[in-house]
Amino acid sequence: MAGFGDSDLTCDDFLGGRIRLWQPREGYRAGVDPVLLAASLPARAGQSVLELGCGAGAAILCLAARVSGLGLTGVELQPAYAELARRNAAGNAAELEVVEGDLSALPAEMKQRQFDHVLANPPYYRSGAHSPATDEGRSVALGERTPLALWFDVAAKRLAPKGYLHVIQRADRLPEMLAACSGRLGSIEVLPLSARAGRAPELLILRARKGGRAAFRLHAPLILHAGDRHLRDADSYTPEISAVLRDGAALPWPSGR
Amino acid sequence: MAGFGDSDLTCDDFLGGRIRLWQPREGYRAGVDPVLLAASLPARAGQSVLELGCGAGAAILCLAARVSGLGLTGVELQPAYAELARRNAAGNAAELEVVEGDLSALPAEMKQRQFDHVLANPPYYRSGAHSPATDEGRSVALGERTPLALWFDVAAKRLAPKGYLHVIQRADRLPEMLAACSGRLGSIEVLPLSARAGRAPELLILRARKGGRAAFRLHAPLILHAGDRHLRDADSYTPEISAVLRDGAALPWPSGR
Repeated sequence: MAGFGDSDLTCDDFLGGRIRLWQPREGYRAGVDPVLLAASLPARAGQSVLELGCGAGAAILCLAARVSGLGLTGVELQPAYAELARRNAAGNAAELEVVEGDLSALPAEMKQRQFDHVLANPPYYRSGAHSPATDEGRSVALGERTPLALWFDVAAKRLAPKGYLHVIQRADRLPEMLAACSGRLGSIEVLPLSARAGRAPELLILRARKGGRAAFRLHAPLILHAGDRHLRDADSYTPEISAVLRDGAALPWPSGR
Repeated sequence: MAGFGDSDLTCDDFLGGRIRLWQPREGYRAGVDPVLLAASLPARAGQSVLELGCGAGAAILCLAARVSGLGLTGVELQPAYAELARRNAAGNAAELEVVEGDLSALPAEMKQRQFDHVLANPPYYRSGAHSPATDEGRSVALGERTPLALWFDVAAKRLAPKGYLHVIQRADRLPEMLAACSGRLGSIEVLPLSARAGRAPELLILRARKGGRAAFRLHAPLILHAGDRHLRDADSYTPEISAVLRDGAALPWPSGR
């Protein structure tokens, strides 16, 4: 895939304008999901962070805007998106190392490294299980040529002991995700994300730790929208979610039982 | 274990007195969990139902009180509880066949049969992971000498094609349960049960179908108690749960997405 020309791109605000990202007009465009993902990491200054499939950098750059002093690395298969991620990092004064490569064949140098945090927003649809995307880059980003289990394989290998993995994914793929954690990632917590109270969660954030041994925890759903469903969604985020999306706050991850 | 004498027993109302069950004063005593489990089955007259580990019969007799015309079979390891189940069935005018046996070695006759529904309320605690129970029968009922995966093995074998399994269990054992379903039980749905809105679910009901191929579904939690936490729990059930526990209604299983 060739690189994007400026006319192929839009420049969009995230975190209330704290960061601005160039994104392809027609390709894969980040919504709120990578922002919520980034807001869920308990990262501290001095730690290292690896994003698998960083795309144009929305998640990891949102994280960098919230937590300073992180070492940031992204892996991206598609060169045009990797280039966008570099451009977006520079435009937001973030130091982001972007490695181009396939998760199934990371550069040898990457295989020597371990990270305190790994995050990923893997494609939501199985190849062939959805209408074909008209855009090749979007198709790669959405169509999952890379099986979900491979994302967990790579994450488990690249995590330091006790390091955290955070993944945002469709709730209906929870069984696959748990199977992919089995035997190497533990202390698993699942935070379902529901559009409104009482509605089935469509997405979830899975947190796991390398070598973790705590019991599995299923949290109460985090509700994204308050109020009546007739309101436009953009106007109806709960205060907690609005603080994440507009003010760059941390996601209120449940602590007690 | 010897049988129970009458002085060892209490006679307790379930479903607002629609059924009355003799239960051991000191042993394993049914609470609301088997009642919720029984209320979750979409069973119809003429269908066959097998309960694994039926104890004194609380779940399957609650089901019989709600849906008439079912063929009812229970398997129970402990003879004294099996005897109680027979007594309770007779006392509530239900025809319940109680088979004494270990799930790992069911009688040959049972291995020839298949059922439209299987239900189970397996022990909640792993052996050795909790304080020792002082009562031997309660210890067997709670202490899980039978691994959780075996309950799913037996259920999968005894279910007719497209038959339904319903299991109530601690939410922290979801990964084990999903792994135990893998490859033979599908169309899995998980209904978390939360004491109050916004609280993490401690229990869940898992529904699966033999040979089912629908996507996994994680439902919004079913909230058991309404109102302020200072109220006594017994006074604070939501109307839907109260209808289940006091009026013998079906549990409001989520249908749409």
